[in-house]
Amino acid sequence: MHELFKDIDQDRARSFKGRDIISPLDFEKDEILFLLDVARRFETFREPVLPGCILAALFFEPSTRTRLSFESAIQRLGGSVLGFADKGVSSVAKGETLYDTIRVVEAYCDAIVIRHPLEGSARVAAESTERPVINGGDGANQHPTQTLLDLYTIRKEKDRIDGLRIGFLGDLKYGRAVHSLVDTLCHFDVEMKLISPKTLRLPAQLREKLDSVGISFSEHEEILPAAAGLDILYTTRIQKERFPDLLDYERVKSVYQVDRTILPEVGEELTIMHPLPRVTEISPDLDDYPRAAYFRQSANGVTVRRALLALVLGGIL
Amino acid sequence: MHELFKDIDQDRARSFKGRDIISPLDFEKDEILFLLDVARRFETFREPVLPGCILAALFFEPSTRTRLSFESAIQRLGGSVLGFADKGVSSVAKGETLYDTIRVVEAYCDAIVIRHPLEGSARVAAESTERPVINGGDGANQHPTQTLLDLYTIRKEKDRIDGLRIGFLGDLKYGRAVHSLVDTLCHFDVEMKLISPKTLRLPAQLREKLDSVGISFSEHEEILPAAAGLDILYTTRIQKERFPDLLDYERVKSVYQVDRTILPEVGEELTIMHPLPRVTEISPDLDDYPRAAYFRQSANGVTVRRALLALVLGGIL
Amino acid sequence: MHELFKDIDQDRARSFKGRDIISPLDFEKDEILFLLDVARRFETFREPVLPGCILAALFFEPSTRTRLSFESAIQRLGGSVLGFADKGVSSVAKGETLYDTIRVVEAYCDAIVIRHPLEGSARVAAESTERPVINGGDGANQHPTQTLLDLYTIRKEKDRIDGLRIGFLGDLKYGRAVHSLVDTLCHFDVEMKLISPKTLRLPAQLREKLDSVGISFSEHEEILPAAAGLDILYTTRIQKERFPDLLDYERVKSVYQVDRTILPEVGEELTIMHPLPRVTEISPDLDDYPRAAYFRQSANGVTVRRALLALVLGGIL
Repeated sequence: MHELFKDIDQDRARSFKGRDIISPLDFEKDEILFLLDVARRFETFREPVLPGCILAALFFEPSTRTRLSFESAIQRLGGSVLGFADKGVSSVAKGETLYDTIRVVEAYCDAIVIRHPLEGSARVAAESTERPVINGGDGANQHPTQTLLDLYTIRKEKDRIDGLRIGFLGDLKYGRAVHSLVDTLCHFDVEMKLISPKTLRLPAQLREKLDSVGISFSEHEEILPAAAGLDILYTTRIQKERFPDLLDYERVKSVYQVDRTILPEVGEELTIMHPLPRVTEISPDLDDYPRAAYFRQSANGVTVRRALLALVLGGIL
Repeated sequence: MHELFKDIDQDRARSFKGRDIISPLDFEKDEILFLLDVARRFETFREPVLPGCILAALFFEPSTRTRLSFESAIQRLGGSVLGFADKGVSSVAKGETLYDTIRVVEAYCDAIVIRHPLEGSARVAAESTERPVINGGDGANQHPTQTLLDLYTIRKEKDRIDGLRIGFLGDLKYGRAVHSLVDTLCHFDVEMKLISPKTLRLPAQLREKLDSVGISFSEHEEILPAAAGLDILYTTRIQKERFPDLLDYERVKSVYQVDRTILPEVGEELTIMHPLPRVTEISPDLDDYPRAAYFRQSANGVTVRRALLALVLGGIL
Repeated sequence: MHELFKDIDQDRARSFKGRDIISPLDFEKDEILFLLDVARRFETFREPVLPGCILAALFFEPSTRTRLSFESAIQRLGGSVLGFADKGVSSVAKGETLYDTIRVVEAYCDAIVIRHPLEGSARVAAESTERPVINGGDGANQHPTQTLLDLYTIRKEKDRIDGLRIGFLGDLKYGRAVHSLVDTLCHFDVEMKLISPKTLRLPAQLREKLDSVGISFSEHEEILPAAAGLDILYTTRIQKERFPDLLDYERVKSVYQVDRTILPEVGEELTIMHPLPRVTEISPDLDDYPRAAYFRQSANGVTVRRALLALVLGGIL
């Protein structure tokens, strides 16, 4: 084992070998902290510890960002990638089941990352093979590496997670990234402000979970004054297709755009995050604001994915 | 040369360097047996003997399975791949000839695998360049690596080819995999049962060849009792578009579906093969039948392609 | 530093590290000669001097040739590639700006090659990131690696550039490769013949530049006798869509087709070049003419791109 990983929990590291990464909710708090710790060490760790390893990237719907960051991660580790970027070129068009596709592809690779529009499909894939399967997003359900990189970014920007006041802004009803992050933050001692149009509130089920685990939260319709005093503002894209009336969309879009005018009101600690791509939610005039963290957040995705791939393929044992 | 290959026929190994793989019918029986023997050794041979080698994968029509298994094969050998998965992104759209495409691509790579809808196109490609060209399927014509992996699977599952009783089931009229395998089996001492609807019989030309080389065969319309006593049942997909009358298709589809109900009738030796993807031809309830070989067959494709690439690129000389 | 590069200008080599390659017009004559000299050394230099390096290939419009030759180049250098072949699979579809795409992708890679339909986009990309950006063609604007490989081919075929008589044939009005090459040749002491239909003459601005730098040129509508005595004939594709009247196109197409019948008239020194793909501009009966250089020209593209990538990524320092 490399010097850098000598003092990590070896049993825990071994427990990740061969493991599927389907939902952040599959992990205990200790496991999440372990993952974040291993990822932090990968910031400075550049060795190709997975030479010859092949990652199959099965993208049944396009997602450049997720696909390319996994490709970058496996290549940085000394491995390579194969797969497809779009179901159009897969045998699914011929009526093949996901089970069969996975059984065939397992012979081509050492691990599989799958993105699929159907909820639950990543779990089905994982149950079809002994190879580790990583969920790259299954419909409205889960996208665990997004959640892990979000948590990683919060901790890296703020040096802690516990004790933070975190705001979520925009479409809290449909945004998968938000649901998954809110849900996973239930392991931590945080305070939340949920800022959204009435029609795009966080689902009742999640609000009930927050209540049941004792996380204090409040709901708001305007950015200010809600964002004042926050440590983190996690913004999201508001999608036109969620609004039956285009005028409603235009109004909401402009209300939920963050720009430099809010800075004097929010205090000096506000870190701004966004899962990207952004359209109009964050004005480019914020890009050189030192705590605009969204591009660092995106870059953290490669670090976190390198750590995960190294763990599930036994690269640092 | 690696220990594992010390006792293979060195002259024969050298004869494959730079060679095109266009049709299984280009090979003598001894050459086929040599290829199967080298492939068998690759089961345990994992060394990257083609470091830095580049395979160009030119897929003028999509075929995920063939493409990905070649990609896996060259990557396992330490090389890499470039190319396209679909003619849409090629210069063919601008009216370029296949000859020109090959002359341009030969400068990018060490070997070429081509899939093209036109019969004879792989041969044209091979004649355009000094680089070894492997046919990944040229229309209804040939798909030599499929045939080699089928033969490899038969021998691996049954420890021999000579003396076997082999059934072919389904669409024997249009199925390229079946034609090519039947044709190549003419080198061997086997017995065949051809089970198909009357409208999808094996072409007369192939039946005549079987007669002329002295292979005993019989034709059947029902799986049972024909399949009883067989060693191998090679099933194939029946394509809806072959039937002018949809009702005919539905009837045939259900008659030619293999499931567990046939097991008590066929004896304990029946190995079931399928080139995949399957749709309804083989019921999933057969997947845990120990002699259901189709996923192993598919996995053998990587082994056989690793062996072939290593041979044509001189990797084990 | 490798033996082969010991006597090159080290300061100049260092000056290329991290540099963007946007337009051939950004280079001094000395720099161009330096690039051609380094590329010449790469003819025999096969070492993987960029192990682990990742090139992001962002193709917002398809271009198999440019994309695959960059892929080949980085793979030959020991690196790997990721990206997309077509904007359809990128986040641009979601309304992301080029700036954001580049800021995200820079975290995945060490250098970026971009092809984009909009003039100026490569410059925008370069200004968005510290990573070196190579322009793989930005609309009608520039395609610097094409120009460099053209110059490289001229020098390799003729052992010099100064003193040559170079003809340009076909669509001189819209052809980006021609504009860029003509413009860059203004650094050299050459003589030009411009052979085109009246409607497809070289733009006035470029003719004025030729005048101003003292390059002697003449314009012609027929290949012969203009091509007689030339050292180089650079032919280009005439695109049907440039002609409002299809009959005009058919007439021009046949007049500007080069074939063996011109050989007795043009002298023994005429080297024929073409950026490819060709359609009918050069008859296949010229392919075995020893000075038909177009396939060598295309192959030179990999050599030149290997040299460029090695320079901008510091691979031979």
